[in-house]
Amino acid sequence: MTAVPSPAAAVVLRPLPASQVTGGFWARRLEANRAAIPLGHERLVEAGNIGNLRIAAGEAAGEAQGASFRDSDVYKWLEAVAWEYARSPDEALLDRLRTLGRTIATAQREDGYLNSAIQVRGEEPYARLWTSHEHYCAGHLMQAAVAAARATGETELLRVATRLADHLAGTFGPGLREELDGHPVVEMALVELYRQTGERRYLDLARHFVEARGHGRAAKPGFDPSHYGDPAHYSDRLPVREAETVEGHAVRAVYFAAGATDVAIETGDTELLAVMRRQYDVMRRRKQHVTGAVGARWDGEAFGEAYELPPDRAYAETCAGIGAMQWAWRLLLATGESVYADQIELLLYNAVLPAVSLAEADYFYVNTLHRRTGARADVQRSPAHGRRPWFNCACCPPNVMRTLAALPTYLATGTQDGLQVHLYARSALASGGLAVDVDTEYPWDGLVTVTVREAPSREMELALRVPDWAEGATVDGKPVECGGYARVRRVFRPGDRVVLAMPMPARFMVADDRMDATRGCVAVTRGPLVYAIEQPDQPSGVVLEDLRIDTATPPRPEHRPDLLDGVTVLRADGVLESGPAESPYRPLGQPAPAARPAELTLIPYYAWANRGPHAMRVWIPTRRNT
Amino acid sequence: MTAVPSPAAAVVLRPLPASQVTGGFWARRLEANRAAIPLGHERLVEAGNIGNLRIAAGEAAGEAQGASFRDSDVYKWLEAVAWEYARSPDEALLDRLRTLGRTIATAQREDGYLNSAIQVRGEEPYARLWTSHEHYCAGHLMQAAVAAARATGETELLRVATRLADHLAGTFGPGLREELDGHPVVEMALVELYRQTGERRYLDLARHFVEARGHGRAAKPGFDPSHYGDPAHYSDRLPVREAETVEGHAVRAVYFAAGATDVAIETGDTELLAVMRRQYDVMRRRKQHVTGAVGARWDGEAFGEAYELPPDRAYAETCAGIGAMQWAWRLLLATGESVYADQIELLLYNAVLPAVSLAEADYFYVNTLHRRTGARADVQRSPAHGRRPWFNCACCPPNVMRTLAALPTYLATGTQDGLQVHLYARSALASGGLAVDVDTEYPWDGLVTVTVREAPSREMELALRVPDWAEGATVDGKPVECGGYARVRRVFRPGDRVVLAMPMPARFMVADDRMDATRGCVAVTRGPLVYAIEQPDQPSGVVLEDLRIDTATPPRPEHRPDLLDGVTVLRADGVLESGPAESPYRPLGQPAPAARPAELTLIPYYAWANRGPHAMRVWIPTRRNT
Repeated sequence: MTAVPSPAAAVVLRPLPASQVTGGFWARRLEANRAAIPLGHERLVEAGNIGNLRIAAGEAAGEAQGASFRDSDVYKWLEAVAWEYARSPDEALLDRLRTLGRTIATAQREDGYLNSAIQVRGEEPYARLWTSHEHYCAGHLMQAAVAAARATGETELLRVATRLADHLAGTFGPGLREELDGHPVVEMALVELYRQTGERRYLDLARHFVEARGHGRAAKPGFDPSHYGDPAHYSDRLPVREAETVEGHAVRAVYFAAGATDVAIETGDTELLAVMRRQYDVMRRRKQHVTGAVGARWDGEAFGEAYELPPDRAYAETCAGIGAMQWAWRLLLATGESVYADQIELLLYNAVLPAVSLAEADYFYVNTLHRRTGARADVQRSPAHGRRPWFNCACCPPNVMRTLAALPTYLATGTQDGLQVHLYARSALASGGLAVDVDTEYPWDGLVTVTVREAPSREMELALRVPDWAEGATVDGKPVECGGYARVRRVFRPGDRVVLAMPMPARFMVADDRMDATRGCVAVTRGPLVYAIEQPDQPSGVVLEDLRIDTATPPRPEHRPDLLDGVTVLRADGVLESGPAESPYRPLGQPAPAARPAELTLIPYYAWANRGPHAMRVWIPTRRNT
Repeated sequence: MTAVPSPAAAVVLRPLPASQVTGGFWARRLEANRAAIPLGHERLVEAGNIGNLRIAAGEAAGEAQGASFRDSDVYKWLEAVAWEYARSPDEALLDRLRTLGRTIATAQREDGYLNSAIQVRGEEPYARLWTSHEHYCAGHLMQAAVAAARATGETELLRVATRLADHLAGTFGPGLREELDGHPVVEMALVELYRQTGERRYLDLARHFVEARGHGRAAKPGFDPSHYGDPAHYSDRLPVREAETVEGHAVRAVYFAAGATDVAIETGDTELLAVMRRQYDVMRRRKQHVTGAVGARWDGEAFGEAYELPPDRAYAETCAGIGAMQWAWRLLLATGESVYADQIELLLYNAVLPAVSLAEADYFYVNTLHRRTGARADVQRSPAHGRRPWFNCACCPPNVMRTLAALPTYLATGTQDGLQVHLYARSALASGGLAVDVDTEYPWDGLVTVTVREAPSREMELALRVPDWAEGATVDGKPVECGGYARVRRVFRPGDRVVLAMPMPARFMVADDRMDATRGCVAVTRGPLVYAIEQPDQPSGVVLEDLRIDTATPPRPEHRPDLLDGVTVLRADGVLESGPAESPYRPLGQPAPAARPAELTLIPYYAWANRGPHAMRVWIPTRRNT
């Protein structure tokens, strides 16, 4: 399990070690992820990432391949292996982890420094930290090492990671070198390493890296008119306590924020925690797509301004969705507030899960919310436009692997006298002697039955999240408020049942009036899922761009076990307008184009792009522009 | 005058040598441009462009500054000097031209090759044509040389340009080297050089460059997942005759299209001309902002897909607007159809003129149609976000200079028996013995009075463009169709008057239903001008993002000689909504936010950003999202 606060940390909830997915929706998705992990190893070999480490270790000869961030892909993959081993041991995977661990240990320099590409090329360490990603790689190694130690008991990687952390601590900090890595992640990794080892200097270094940012020490030095010359790109424009919003490169920003939140938690810094909550709130309210995804701009892979959220050019990088989940998780532990669990659910289903195909393990790097056609050349060519097995910059695939492998972590938390269930899946959960089985057809149905398997003889509290969308929810038949936790406190006995029932009507959602790109459109959601229209589900000859949805009647759900690994589709009424006008701009007041009735079929957004490249829309126009 | 077809060319209209702006709106703007030209020289010295040429010529010592496209900025500036000299001679400017001409001639290698940065750095010529811009620089040199020859009679540059063209012709083509320059412009430049010198091999080489494109010979070789690896970026995905649309890097695409059109005109290739007309039509109908500007994506400075035209992230590069004007001009000459003159007018007022400040000669590289705030850090930092005196990549400022200096070219054309007036300005025009004075307060007023100064004794035709927006126009009191030419044919006599009266009500424009980014919004136009709301004109405390315009009553014009060098503003009714909702997405059907009446003041879009960085909108929301 990831991000496990130390005993002294300022948190109100604690991760649970033994949560398990036992069936249903997530079991299927996690099995697909398990099947993808060995393929990931093949792709890391083909792309040369593992070769780089082997060359650095003297196990192979040749030139280093690719940029100096490539080690990080290996480390993320190792983290996935570790969490997957915890879900269900597999000795072949463990062997891979051991073999690679030895290679990595051998590649490490005597003084603790480690970056295979830099070493093989004989480059000066830390000379171009704004772009070299050396700390970033170190951070991912630390995360993998902590995962291996927690999940498998293997400590070879932890030894390497602590030696590297020691090297960092002896090289950077007040009175030492003051540059910062252009790409955060080392902050949260150092905190995790502190949690695992108890070594305070790692927390101190993390705090230093968090507080030192915002003075232009991470950004590319000198003048560069592109985003590379902009401190905002690196979350380096303002000190974290002065920043009101995340900005710049989205992955960097949310990784940094997660690390800053970790530091706040471990140092009991309530002021910093309040800052991070405020920044999250601004992101959620002004810079988040309806899918939860973050990142609006291709240029610089960046957050846009407030309300700049174009569906068609949504960058919505997979890694940014994962980073936002990590940040929300830390805020959930710190506060126990359901808004952060709502966020984790939204992100998981609609920003992370869409990034991997249902089969074949192909990935999205960029998660658009709107594709106009299926026939553009760059759909095939650009890694960012289509699902692909791997990428030149392959940060996303192993990030998805490690996130899904660690999914059970996010299901529930515990306190001394209670169990808090955040995500609904067929699962087995336990805290403080209270063990329960959760049974549900979620996300297709809102009925959740919690059956007590074991219970202590004392009073315990079972807290069930009632999502913000779950109006009309009941627990054991009694109405409960949505947007919080329904709490059942009593002395539980084995066999006791608690039933949460959440109505799941399809809903038309509209965006804030300040959001320009989605004016005149609705998004359709049902339960935790955001829906989309995709070409293959519409009658032949229908051009998606000419469909208009009728919001007068609610969409009708229909479960389709045969479709897309089993999904509930929605049928909605609408019209198909005649094609585009002759002139792209015309005076107001001309008559509406001809239209004929049309039924729209919507699928869950996460399941799109599994039948080749096709047109797709999340935001659907209502009736015309007049 | 630019793009002067050869006597044998397949055109129906011919440029006129002696058109002059004599006062009014454009006289003021051209005077500002004239004042900017000497500043351009200073900036070319400061940035090192002229230094590069001087080093290559052995006149100075040092290292070359910047990328190998930098010579082109000097050449564009020289072209501006030449056209400005033609408008009104200035011996100091001519001296600059002569001095620089000598430097350039000295810098040229014995074999005719010329690129200062490549030469100074001792790099292999043409080794990285996809990015080196060597042909691009050569093209701009040819254009400057032709301008100098036509406008000043100076032929030193022409000698250099023909030697370089000969070098190109001996190096590239069938049976020779087959690579193509990543950035077109040499195609139209070679055609102009052919027109000036009569040397057929230049036309042949231009035709080769046009026809050879589309086979991956211009794109960066090898795999690159970014736009640099995408042949579409270089207009190199499909042969010109197979391409249905412009795509990729916008400036490259329109420059290439203008060159292909030139080739079609000079070779009498009606098939190719039809292709270029079709491509223009697709651009106009699907890929052009309401301002006429083209280019939707920051990433790759590129065209988007059809109907992908976000106002807030409009790239709308100044050079792309200029290139589109050049393309439209060639199509106007070839066809005589008013749609191309309408385009020139739209582009000139709303895509090119906005790129230069009213005073101080500060430029936009990117012409956004929407800026949410005036306070973002990157407004100051990024050259693309604010007007600046110069840019690291300074293609745009001298491009504006040469375009405005050549403005008289675009006013009118001639045929054997007639004069066609395309743009309305206080001006003096003459063709085939018919000389007229045009008097007008255009663009503020639609009354245009044409007074005959001299006339031959034979019958002549005076053709006056009636813009597509000019519903209800009259000539000498008689109604004429808009979207064409009103033709007056008779034996004119000195003192004769023809009066064109065009009503200029403000109009609310809406976009095609397929255009997502502007749904629920209107743009306001009046005559040839697109209007915008900018912060300084609204009452204090009004947040532009919360203004909604009421389309029930037409905006009211008011001429303000004191404002922004004299503009007609528009007053419109609307409301100011209360600020953003708590939640960025909400179920459909919640009540509209509170609103209070508000008057909106609109200014011509070209005049925005002359009072510091402020929020601005071209597309204004009507009433809320419901």
